[in-house]
Amino acid sequence: MSVLTLISRNKMFNGSHERYRHFSDANQCEMTFAVYLPPQALQGYRVPVLYWLSGLTCTDENFSTKSGAQRFAAQWGIALVMPDTSPRGAGVADDDAYNLGQGAGFYLDATRAPWAANYQMYSYIVHELPALIEAHFPVNGQRSIAGHSMGGHGALQIALKNPGRYAAVSAFAPIANPSQTPWGQKAFAAYLGDNPELWAQYDSTELAKTAVKKLPVLIDQGSADEFYPHDLQAQAFVNAARGNGFNVQFNLREGYGHGYYFIATFIDSHIEFHADALGL
Amino acid sequence: MSVLTLISRNKMFNGSHERYRHFSDANQCEMTFAVYLPPQALQGYRVPVLYWLSGLTCTDENFSTKSGAQRFAAQWGIALVMPDTSPRGAGVADDDAYNLGQGAGFYLDATRAPWAANYQMYSYIVHELPALIEAHFPVNGQRSIAGHSMGGHGALQIALKNPGRYAAVSAFAPIANPSQTPWGQKAFAAYLGDNPELWAQYDSTELAKTAVKKLPVLIDQGSADEFYPHDLQAQAFVNAARGNGFNVQFNLREGYGHGYYFIATFIDSHIEFHADALGL
Repeated sequence: MSVLTLISRNKMFNGSHERYRHFSDANQCEMTFAVYLPPQALQGYRVPVLYWLSGLTCTDENFSTKSGAQRFAAQWGIALVMPDTSPRGAGVADDDAYNLGQGAGFYLDATRAPWAANYQMYSYIVHELPALIEAHFPVNGQRSIAGHSMGGHGALQIALKNPGRYAAVSAFAPIANPSQTPWGQKAFAAYLGDNPELWAQYDSTELAKTAVKKLPVLIDQGSADEFYPHDLQAQAFVNAARGNGFNVQFNLREGYGHGYYFIATFIDSHIEFHADALGL
Repeated sequence: MSVLTLISRNKMFNGSHERYRHFSDANQCEMTFAVYLPPQALQGYRVPVLYWLSGLTCTDENFSTKSGAQRFAAQWGIALVMPDTSPRGAGVADDDAYNLGQGAGFYLDATRAPWAANYQMYSYIVHELPALIEAHFPVNGQRSIAGHSMGGHGALQIALKNPGRYAAVSAFAPIANPSQTPWGQKAFAAYLGDNPELWAQYDSTELAKTAVKKLPVLIDQGSADEFYPHDLQAQAFVNAARGNGFNVQFNLREGYGHGYYFIATFIDSHIEFHADALGL
């Protein structure tokens, strides 16, 4: 298991917001993540973890600095883990576009060159990172998962495929049917190849149709989001999931946009949703 | 009065976070500011305004995106106005250092070349900006003022010299005795000249000793702040103000640093302090 190098530590809401760097076996490069330990974790209690997956172009810092989530994580006694959105570095394949390559890992395991060498974000998020977190921090093994936009896609498809690992899943403005929409089609073609049959394993709407275990789902979508519905298509996922018996709470938020002004407004209700699913 | 050009508008906490650009008569350049209108202001009520002055290197965006203040401004029905920290632009004097020139206006009216041509932030904050706000937005003429670091210096010295214009003043980690500390001495020498007698008009600790009208003061200071007490010296201000009969609430926050992790943690109590002073 890799060594964690502390980058920074800041007290926040009587807990500790910390950034770490480590070498990832899955991604074969240095990765950075942030963790917020609530006051309960500093007082000797083991706490559950909410994994937050960010959107295109983000690092671990966007959600850390802009969401206000730590206020509510501190109230409920939940640790937050905020990974980067892709492998990064001089030796890692990249693309000039914002929606492919570094900052755009799409939370999948790439199979095509040049991406396959480093872009193994699915394995990193599902296996490597939780193992690291559970070895190094005072957590109790309970997990939940959430994300925004590309990270909403990541959270949904990861939770649907691994329902035993997560208590619940929530998303803001998720890319919810990526095999049918432009951002997703571009990324899936590059990372997985041209055969759309290979894309379904990472398409939340397709996964929802056949999922057996139904964990609770919460989705918030702004009605003034410039990418909705074109690149996002939350409604397709909601229809598929409800059709298969999922309990999906879907909030279309009148007048809200795509970014952190929207997330900050409703993050309290998402943390509360996960707290409830985690039995807090 | 100058024309306001809308840059962006985002719904947040059922209110509206807006950015504007305008030509400043005081600073003789284009200036940018942000305003958060709480839901009450959108529903036809005229609301009070809390002016927020940011610290070195900041623009209007740091507090807007990182503090979480809008959540509490919405609850209390207070508008937030977040100006830039200096004049800016290709024709505006600057310095390579982060603590002089653009991003470091120190909320004073410069008298020395090359700064005097544009660096008139005191007049801008005290007179020009409120006149603009009160002409263009649904506000009721009540004002309060707060700030961080260099902006804490700005808020304190502006409030002490204009107590009739503000209901209260609060600061996070203020540069509270700038004529005695390195950041302040460097800026004052450049903007005002070498005669320290001219510096007292912008030194909150000096102003507190002789102020006649005593408005309420709240200061939060992190004990793990890398610039405390060296460049900040809140205690000097607190002693001078209390010695002259001010009601100063001073909170030394154990383990907290200088930045927005600290501000986000305690911003709710600052908004509540201003709400109380504003009679809400």
